[in-house]
Amino acid sequence: MITGKNRIGFEQYAEGTTTFKTFNPQENKENETEIFEATPSEVERACKLASEAFMVYRNMPGVKRAAFLNAISEELLAQGDTLLDVYMMESGLPRGRAEGERGRMIGQLKSFADLVEKDDWREPSKQSADQATRKMLIPIGPIAVFGASNFPFAFSTAGGDTASALAAGNPVVAKGHPMHAQTAELVSEAILNAAHRTGMPEGVFSNLNSNGNEVGSLLVQNKYIKAVGFTGSLKGGRALYDLAAKREEPIPVFAEMGSINPVIITQKALETRSAEIANMYADSIVMGAGQFCTNPGLILVVKSPEASEFMESLANKLEKKPSFCMLHPNIEAGFSRSKEEIRSQTSVVVVDEAASPERPNYAQAALVSVKGAVFLENTKLHQEVFGPFSMVVICNDKAELIQIIEQLEGQLTGTIMAEKSDYAKLTEVFQALQDRVGRVVFNGVPTGVEVCEAMTHGGPYPASTDSRFTAVGLGAIRRWVRPFTFQNVPNALLPKILK
Amino acid sequence: MITGKNRIGFEQYAEGTTTFKTFNPQENKENETEIFEATPSEVERACKLASEAFMVYRNMPGVKRAAFLNAISEELLAQGDTLLDVYMMESGLPRGRAEGERGRMIGQLKSFADLVEKDDWREPSKQSADQATRKMLIPIGPIAVFGASNFPFAFSTAGGDTASALAAGNPVVAKGHPMHAQTAELVSEAILNAAHRTGMPEGVFSNLNSNGNEVGSLLVQNKYIKAVGFTGSLKGGRALYDLAAKREEPIPVFAEMGSINPVIITQKALETRSAEIANMYADSIVMGAGQFCTNPGLILVVKSPEASEFMESLANKLEKKPSFCMLHPNIEAGFSRSKEEIRSQTSVVVVDEAASPERPNYAQAALVSVKGAVFLENTKLHQEVFGPFSMVVICNDKAELIQIIEQLEGQLTGTIMAEKSDYAKLTEVFQALQDRVGRVVFNGVPTGVEVCEAMTHGGPYPASTDSRFTAVGLGAIRRWVRPFTFQNVPNALLPKILK
Repeated sequence: MITGKNRIGFEQYAEGTTTFKTFNPQENKENETEIFEATPSEVERACKLASEAFMVYRNMPGVKRAAFLNAISEELLAQGDTLLDVYMMESGLPRGRAEGERGRMIGQLKSFADLVEKDDWREPSKQSADQATRKMLIPIGPIAVFGASNFPFAFSTAGGDTASALAAGNPVVAKGHPMHAQTAELVSEAILNAAHRTGMPEGVFSNLNSNGNEVGSLLVQNKYIKAVGFTGSLKGGRALYDLAAKREEPIPVFAEMGSINPVIITQKALETRSAEIANMYADSIVMGAGQFCTNPGLILVVKSPEASEFMESLANKLEKKPSFCMLHPNIEAGFSRSKEEIRSQTSVVVVDEAASPERPNYAQAALVSVKGAVFLENTKLHQEVFGPFSMVVICNDKAELIQIIEQLEGQLTGTIMAEKSDYAKLTEVFQALQDRVGRVVFNGVPTGVEVCEAMTHGGPYPASTDSRFTAVGLGAIRRWVRPFTFQNVPNALLPKILK
Repeated sequence: MITGKNRIGFEQYAEGTTTFKTFNPQENKENETEIFEATPSEVERACKLASEAFMVYRNMPGVKRAAFLNAISEELLAQGDTLLDVYMMESGLPRGRAEGERGRMIGQLKSFADLVEKDDWREPSKQSADQATRKMLIPIGPIAVFGASNFPFAFSTAGGDTASALAAGNPVVAKGHPMHAQTAELVSEAILNAAHRTGMPEGVFSNLNSNGNEVGSLLVQNKYIKAVGFTGSLKGGRALYDLAAKREEPIPVFAEMGSINPVIITQKALETRSAEIANMYADSIVMGAGQFCTNPGLILVVKSPEASEFMESLANKLEKKPSFCMLHPNIEAGFSRSKEEIRSQTSVVVVDEAASPERPNYAQAALVSVKGAVFLENTKLHQEVFGPFSMVVICNDKAELIQIIEQLEGQLTGTIMAEKSDYAKLTEVFQALQDRVGRVVFNGVPTGVEVCEAMTHGGPYPASTDSRFTAVGLGAIRRWVRPFTFQNVPNALLPKILK
């Protein structure tokens, strides 16, 4: 089933001579299959085919697109353990996570299928029958989707970007993440089987392999591509954004680029349930080996004996956590490097002293602490460490804490751990946080992004390139549509929903 | 009342030494008042004040913002003839137009006031009371608004960009168009009076003067500015877009940059009502001296005796139109230059031979014609001529006509003039057009953009920088807001609408 080839329309392509392999981080060895890097002409072919498919696909009734999405779910489930095994082989993530994330991927496909089965999502204008001007949302054209390293299912080939783009009526040209090219191919196979059996036009979906930057860069610059979805690093997302903005016809890029997700814990909360919070946060910090963009990387407290105790207790709990296999040697190396860079900054205190794990590609959770004034002065400390890492910032007082929130870059989330008696005094903190984030969480953890209508997964730059949109939840479809006005258009040519 | 000074918060500033004057095109002379070019420190002050005002303004209840918008309308009306006289003095437009456009400006303010009086526009998530995750739209921060040359009221200081931004809870820093700086000051005075008497924070609105590029460029790059609204030329809009995209924190720019607005006339329509259509289009081409971004600059017909007759008849009617005063000598010079450039292209036929008007700054409508094949080959012919100008493209057949539509750049509008018996054969044309425009019009003219819920004023690039939004209609507010998720937030801190 796995060929290592590019899937362009309903065909397999391997025109190029450059190949690469994926890696099994648990076994610390390369996986066997050779993956064929897409060539420039393969990129062009996929994009052109997508553009041709768009002419047909955009006019298909919602029930047909819904049937396509549901068929993708069926095909994915039909792959059974084969799919899960490849996922685990390429990510080092455990079976439970593979199953859970497959469920999430399928849940997303299903929820977008449900959404577009009826046409209300198009926001048809509320007009009386005799009014001549009507409006609805229409798809914008072929979308380039970049798979994320840390969610081989839910934010990759058939993840939220693809599901929302296809649901809206846009063909997708996906670039699989090089760390899980085989998983991407299997998922692509499921999508293409579904496209075939539900009568979708060839080119409605293609999947390109690439281990470098050229394919992605060609994709974003291709004239047939009308928007881009990306989940990954700030460096990668910004590079794509810049390329798209420089095009003769600039196109929108929605890049979700991670975050350090500040958590504020009030003194009252520390006094009341320090141990409980330490437990909760130790779990959140190591969840998915910390490889989540919503990982709590910054904990803000005002100095007090309870704050110090909390920090010790959190360090203690983290030290007792097992080490975790990271997604790839490069990810582990990046984690070690960023962690050491933070630790080497002046006045940073290493709180968690657990020994480095012996197994290759494994990482142990790490906690550091720093004073508020130091954090404010050194913006290196504001950078994301991708992995099981967090930093406790001990602020002098509430004013310093608010100043820190205000100086943070844009974030996906902000969390407040507080007691009922705190609420009245939290307005200022809450306001400052609201200005910096896309989602605020009370008495919980930021990890675990529920797929629901009310979700916002995005935020002020650099959490995402455009805070006006979300990557998770039904609102994600808005990224790929535009309003269109029908003025005095005769019934014969009006879409059914506007008649 | 008119000082020529910048209005920053509730104060007047004239720190700089550079001044300029506006121009009366009817009398062909400079207007007296010296206008003070804003200095870099004045730009910074306006933006910082806007940022401080945002902290207060964004939390004001909708009824207060609505009261502010309604007070602006009252203040504008209270200025009476003074405002209309200055408008005419700086634009050369007649009183009827001044009154009409004032009505439009006030209508927009009123419709956004009505919209935000209740909070439904925030799209609060539909959740049961016990669900912990809720969502609504919140304002994104201070907006820079650039006034347009051709709509001193409706697309300028208190135009749709300002009205929608203020309605959503964002302060505005406006840069008046240099051609009507005095009008901008009077309108600013009305906004600031209204802000004062309805208790708005200082900095909710500022107005900066500039006759060059530096102020605009500083404004778009200022860290306190979170988005940009612009109506004007492709060159100007693209320059601002590029600056915004290069910022460390890129910000969205909605630039509406004009269009040639293709009109397709079927053979049946020509056979049935050629004279009626020629009349209708002669009026549309000269409306506002052709200085509308929805001016019909391109008329597509398939060759036939009726097509030739129609062209002659349209030329005839245009020749009989009086000449029109343009907004400014520069606009008239630009019109002459672009018109001559088109006329000088190989195989372009001048259809309308009316003599040039004797009065300075006046322009006479012009019509040219060209064969489809010539148009396809020469993209210079695809460029907008800003003024009373149109081009009839004689296509060989329907296939060539469709090919031309497909090769057009993005457009604000596309129009089809057709008879009932044509409708069934129009699917292909309609689809091709839909791909290229933001609004399609049947049996009408593209000029005259109704302010209503169903309006889309925007379209694929370069009609606008982001086809996912509109500059006219209530949807315009979407440009300035972002979704925000409240997860498990206690009632005490939840906005009222989400409780």
